[in-house]
Amino acid sequence: MVIGGDAAGMSAASTAKRRAGDDLEVIVLERTAWTSYSACGIPYWVAGDVAGPEGLVARSPEQHRERGLDVRVGAEVTAIDTADRTVTVRSVDDGSEQALGFDQLLVATGAEPMRPDVPGSDAPGVHGVQTLDDGCRLIASLTRRAPRRAVVVGAGYIGIEMAEACKRRGLETTVIDKAAEPMGTLDPDLGRQVHEAMELMGIGVVTGTTVEAFESDADGVTGVVAGGRTYAADVVILGLGVRPRTPLARAAGLPLGAFGGVRVEPSMAVPGLDGVWAAGDCVEVWDRVREAFVYVPLGTHANKQGRIAGMNLSGGHEVFQGVVGTAVTKVCELEVARTGLTQGQADAMGHDAVSATIETTTRAGYFPGAQPMTVRLTAEPYSGRLLGAQIIGKEGSAIRIDTCATALWSRMCVQELVDLDLAYAPPFSSTWDPIQVAARSLLGELR
Amino acid sequence: MVIGGDAAGMSAASTAKRRAGDDLEVIVLERTAWTSYSACGIPYWVAGDVAGPEGLVARSPEQHRERGLDVRVGAEVTAIDTADRTVTVRSVDDGSEQALGFDQLLVATGAEPMRPDVPGSDAPGVHGVQTLDDGCRLIASLTRRAPRRAVVVGAGYIGIEMAEACKRRGLETTVIDKAAEPMGTLDPDLGRQVHEAMELMGIGVVTGTTVEAFESDADGVTGVVAGGRTYAADVVILGLGVRPRTPLARAAGLPLGAFGGVRVEPSMAVPGLDGVWAAGDCVEVWDRVREAFVYVPLGTHANKQGRIAGMNLSGGHEVFQGVVGTAVTKVCELEVARTGLTQGQADAMGHDAVSATIETTTRAGYFPGAQPMTVRLTAEPYSGRLLGAQIIGKEGSAIRIDTCATALWSRMCVQELVDLDLAYAPPFSSTWDPIQVAARSLLGELR
Repeated sequence: MVIGGDAAGMSAASTAKRRAGDDLEVIVLERTAWTSYSACGIPYWVAGDVAGPEGLVARSPEQHRERGLDVRVGAEVTAIDTADRTVTVRSVDDGSEQALGFDQLLVATGAEPMRPDVPGSDAPGVHGVQTLDDGCRLIASLTRRAPRRAVVVGAGYIGIEMAEACKRRGLETTVIDKAAEPMGTLDPDLGRQVHEAMELMGIGVVTGTTVEAFESDADGVTGVVAGGRTYAADVVILGLGVRPRTPLARAAGLPLGAFGGVRVEPSMAVPGLDGVWAAGDCVEVWDRVREAFVYVPLGTHANKQGRIAGMNLSGGHEVFQGVVGTAVTKVCELEVARTGLTQGQADAMGHDAVSATIETTTRAGYFPGAQPMTVRLTAEPYSGRLLGAQIIGKEGSAIRIDTCATALWSRMCVQELVDLDLAYAPPFSSTWDPIQVAARSLLGELR
Repeated sequence: MVIGGDAAGMSAASTAKRRAGDDLEVIVLERTAWTSYSACGIPYWVAGDVAGPEGLVARSPEQHRERGLDVRVGAEVTAIDTADRTVTVRSVDDGSEQALGFDQLLVATGAEPMRPDVPGSDAPGVHGVQTLDDGCRLIASLTRRAPRRAVVVGAGYIGIEMAEACKRRGLETTVIDKAAEPMGTLDPDLGRQVHEAMELMGIGVVTGTTVEAFESDADGVTGVVAGGRTYAADVVILGLGVRPRTPLARAAGLPLGAFGGVRVEPSMAVPGLDGVWAAGDCVEVWDRVREAFVYVPLGTHANKQGRIAGMNLSGGHEVFQGVVGTAVTKVCELEVARTGLTQGQADAMGHDAVSATIETTTRAGYFPGAQPMTVRLTAEPYSGRLLGAQIIGKEGSAIRIDTCATALWSRMCVQELVDLDLAYAPPFSSTWDPIQVAARSLLGELR
């Protein structure tokens, strides 16, 4: 029995079914009408790059059924009884309820957008963008109400992607965030580059400002009150991030962590509850750099965890090895990537850390189309162990973060980054790879 | 005393001078008029992308002199006496010779293009492209003789880059190679993709064919005889690769390896000769995957080795950690990258190896501009240790090889590749990273 039909749930269901075949009956209960979709693609749908919602669906309920999965949509689970081994399922269509028994259960209930705890945040026209249904509601609102002005609350990944999408759709767009600069997962001076790129595109960026209220009339939201003034808005998008959707898990007695996510074993098993598993945006994960549980809701982790849960609940022996905090996005032609700890995060943890920052180009300096890029590396003094990396630049910059993520995974030192045999040809980099230029600079700081 | 003023020689000279300051007199003897140039940029100069030769010079002799280096151009070293600790220098201008004493010597004499051992290969109009002077001669020939037809001999990195450059310059261009497919450092079926891309661009590709002779008249080369027929040519470019330029080192008694390169310690010291060092395209390097010395002439290694030699000859303690065989190029919009061993190379070594190949896209499948890419991973059975990777695809494909190169450096297993926390967002990849899709597929083969 799988609760939730997106990345983690469907990966698990498909993997288990492929392995166990007719020996295993797999039921998937999904609240919405959609399965296996890319919520990360919603900004590109809003911007008009992708024909949604179908374009964002990797595999529909019908396609899953053809592969032998019993996928039930519009099926909301309202309770889990781990003693009786049943779930209570409510039909979204007619409200009828039934109990279904399970031998093994996977909780893959995902995440829900954070809403500011201020008056009016539930007004019509205030949209989260976490599920495909959220996307459908937003697109309907953008189509039907023909709004002119959008306000995006929060300037993290989703916030800046949605702001760009709204701007490209022709809306006058303002982003409001309480931090000093956008992209709080970067050091602020690098976030400043994102700030400037957004302003250059004509997006209003209001930082250091807390949202105090939403104003609305009979038609829905009309404005966002922040920092003592009102920003007129015909549509509002919440980009404050998400939290684990775990009321159901909590009520059923599953152990939750500090972030409200389910705490699982590396096998994705829920400790103390035989045959109960959890995976995806509803669980906390082990951070190999912080050496602590963190909450990192990302499709790529959800897919991996789902696959592992599917292997293990069908008799496999797989382990989720944790994360190092790699993330990437693109805003207004600027690619932004990070992994591990920023200098600021290391400082906040009381971790002794040193950074070096270099400016270089995406190709050999003399090569046509060479564009600026910034690389910052952060490491432990004395040991020289890499702690994190941040990269900002034009096309061809961001994917280089994977080299740092791989090095971080292996607990490499900065000297080893300098030694690596990385690819070089003039269309791809300077003779000294940008990461190695930064590593050399950081070696100088460490000594 | 440094012999050779390109990547390795000037990196060493600059590094040593920066560290030792006035305590160290640094003399650089360079045969040509150029220092610190990018020979890898010559194809882009020929194609018209870069204004050469100056555009390919990172730092001129004059700029080096301003930094305190005694750079002497047109100064060809004709003999090294390691007992007397002198070199004999001949002036290219007037043929005069003088002896210069040294305390420490760095041999950085680079590489020379391989010439086929067939009649006529030294005819005017048959060009190597190894030095900036080679580039100047080729450009002069292309300008003065206004050739219509180019033949490129050899379809490795330089050969295919030069073929594209000639084609883009408007020449009717044919490449001839004795192997079954271009790019002998890839498995042949992947080389086939390069073959097809070149043909699509209108380049003639003649494979499985050995050059037998060059024909010429009073004006220079007129044709290339290969496979029993004559390919008319107004200009011929040699793309057969290079070999270490080590006659001087050999005559001076420096130890050479199987490829004719100088054998050095990891410190870049020449064993048995106190205060004698060698670096760059004239040395052999340790391959961490093959666990053998190999010959890999690449600017990126030359720069690293030069820096290490410069550190060590000024009292430092640095080590060149070897290579894993990473290389990248771009031909006709197709990016091509490899690291470690191909399946064919593993087979030829008698190394038990298994490969998996996947087709995916450079971005999320639904994202605009998603282009095909192919990833092949090769690993040891049982241990699952990664042995090599090959990637071919459109823009955004090739630089991902760095993830594999880093994994290979750390002797990762395929399972660890699947576990890695790599960057994901729709503009950059599918939810499962292309390398991880290939790694999953290979895990299936290994089990």
